[in-house]
Amino acid sequence: MAKRQGKRTILFDRPPVILGQAAVVGKREGEGPLGDLFDEVHDDNLIEEGSWEKAESKLQKLAVSTALKKANLRADDIDTIFAGDLLNQCIGSSFGLRELGIPFVGLYGACSTMALSLGCASQFIDSGAAKYAVAVTSSHFCAAERQYRFPLEYGGQRPPTAQWTVTGSGAIVLSDAGKGPRVTSLTIGEIEDLGIKDANNMGAAMAPAAATTIRHYLSDTHTNPDDYDAIFTGDLGEVGTTLLYELLERDGVDLSRNHEDCGLLIYDREVQDVHAGGSGCGCSASVLCAYILKKLREGEAKKVLFCATGALLSPTSTQQGESIPSIAHLVCIEAPKN
Amino acid sequence: MAKRQGKRTILFDRPPVILGQAAVVGKREGEGPLGDLFDEVHDDNLIEEGSWEKAESKLQKLAVSTALKKANLRADDIDTIFAGDLLNQCIGSSFGLRELGIPFVGLYGACSTMALSLGCASQFIDSGAAKYAVAVTSSHFCAAERQYRFPLEYGGQRPPTAQWTVTGSGAIVLSDAGKGPRVTSLTIGEIEDLGIKDANNMGAAMAPAAATTIRHYLSDTHTNPDDYDAIFTGDLGEVGTTLLYELLERDGVDLSRNHEDCGLLIYDREVQDVHAGGSGCGCSASVLCAYILKKLREGEAKKVLFCATGALLSPTSTQQGESIPSIAHLVCIEAPKN
Repeated sequence: MAKRQGKRTILFDRPPVILGQAAVVGKREGEGPLGDLFDEVHDDNLIEEGSWEKAESKLQKLAVSTALKKANLRADDIDTIFAGDLLNQCIGSSFGLRELGIPFVGLYGACSTMALSLGCASQFIDSGAAKYAVAVTSSHFCAAERQYRFPLEYGGQRPPTAQWTVTGSGAIVLSDAGKGPRVTSLTIGEIEDLGIKDANNMGAAMAPAAATTIRHYLSDTHTNPDDYDAIFTGDLGEVGTTLLYELLERDGVDLSRNHEDCGLLIYDREVQDVHAGGSGCGCSASVLCAYILKKLREGEAKKVLFCATGALLSPTSTQQGESIPSIAHLVCIEAPKN
Repeated sequence: MAKRQGKRTILFDRPPVILGQAAVVGKREGEGPLGDLFDEVHDDNLIEEGSWEKAESKLQKLAVSTALKKANLRADDIDTIFAGDLLNQCIGSSFGLRELGIPFVGLYGACSTMALSLGCASQFIDSGAAKYAVAVTSSHFCAAERQYRFPLEYGGQRPPTAQWTVTGSGAIVLSDAGKGPRVTSLTIGEIEDLGIKDANNMGAAMAPAAATTIRHYLSDTHTNPDDYDAIFTGDLGEVGTTLLYELLERDGVDLSRNHEDCGLLIYDREVQDVHAGGSGCGCSASVLCAYILKKLREGEAKKVLFCATGALLSPTSTQQGESIPSIAHLVCIEAPKN
């Protein structure tokens, strides 16, 4: 039975255990600072498929099957899978997972989806509605570019505030028992929209949502940033991270000492031409699975917050002159029990 | 605490109560057989907004605010809202609900989303993760046509198997206490794909998913169709309904005696030019809120199944020669306790 703490935080009574996880990425991600930590790196952007969209579906399929293998489970053992991506009508997930025969909850939170899927999967397990669940998300640079921006062949210029969509997928297998990192609480974000209209500056649009969710979580749990070994945001990048610090500083919260952004961790911005950092559903998902959970498993961190951020715009809303509503969901993950 | 029954069904221990619901629709839906039952009928397809997409967002906003009013609650009372729609990146929901400040779970299940959002909201309440929750979905004929098919101005011909996307939204307010119809169980569907490729024949693509979910539910709960006053599907239309009967008949299940399809209820196909029936997230949502819940409240039905169906395709997947993966989620709703 879940308990509510404060206005917006859900504490899990029997924190779900992460039995296995996998991160499958593309070439550029493999060449980045976390390259050695990913389960699979694919140098071919099409991963032997006929289109980038089909390649993205394959990323999810590979991530789920690898995570299941590491958890020593089969698809048939899983009660519910929570999945999402950035493609129109979330076809990355529906086509990637259609052969598994697992009850399927499709989620949409743009780049925040990994925290949402992990949180909802945890909620289902904590409550007894599932014994085993999977959370998975993906993104693909080429599929996202042509859908959100320009055909790759057009060679459009990218402003310095733009981010690079990660080609990758992360999948997590959860259970109500076993040994592994545990998801102990969840704050579901609310939509924030401070009027940013520049679709090439998602970091600025998403920073207020991250600030709000982190503020809510710290206030609900009566904790401060120093109570955590690290606080990870999803894909604020360089611009959004700076804004997040400024926004929280106004409330007397100093996040700079133990904050890291998945969008800044995944690429080497000095060497790789990614402008303000990485982004996409696959960014926070692959960094969570390859890097953050490894730290927790190996005792390098005891307790972290994972706050994935999403910009809930579409090309249509931008063309109609709309601003960018954003959202951030947060889960607290703790090291395995001794 | 939820209990699992059989392989795929979740029984709620403390069945969430529906405190209020609202259905807001467009002109054609108002002219149909259920016209008098809707809370609001808008003759203007733009509902005083600048675009059809913005009008769809407004439908959601109006449905939620009316449902809250009927439940005697304010947005601030709601712990979590579960929402989805058919537009790319689900902008119907994110823009429609951005001003409410309610923790927001974005869902994508195509036209099946109302059963998914109602099921997930119920799960959160049953487990104590929320005290009050809202489930809402929408669709808009004009926005869906130009996104999925052709610009309206083009005047494309529609084959007889095509369905008409409902302009409408339905919203439901749930609580852990109070008086009203109760959501007593949930079966989350799995993705089915029998290889149908005709995007103008969604009924055929979705019928196998409905058959699978209904079969799972009946088998998990050891019941048969006669144990329910009615079994509603979301938007199979004429073609899909016939196929559903055939598929279930093979397993010895006769659904024809007490089955109704929301897509066949909402329009008069003799008079209104809608071909195989209504469809869209807003179809099952508005029929549920206006018609089905009314029957339960007024004692005309004691126990019904609501099985919403969705086709998880996109124009991109169709252009790439893909078939249509489909899904159906099911909730059991019972009349208020005396």
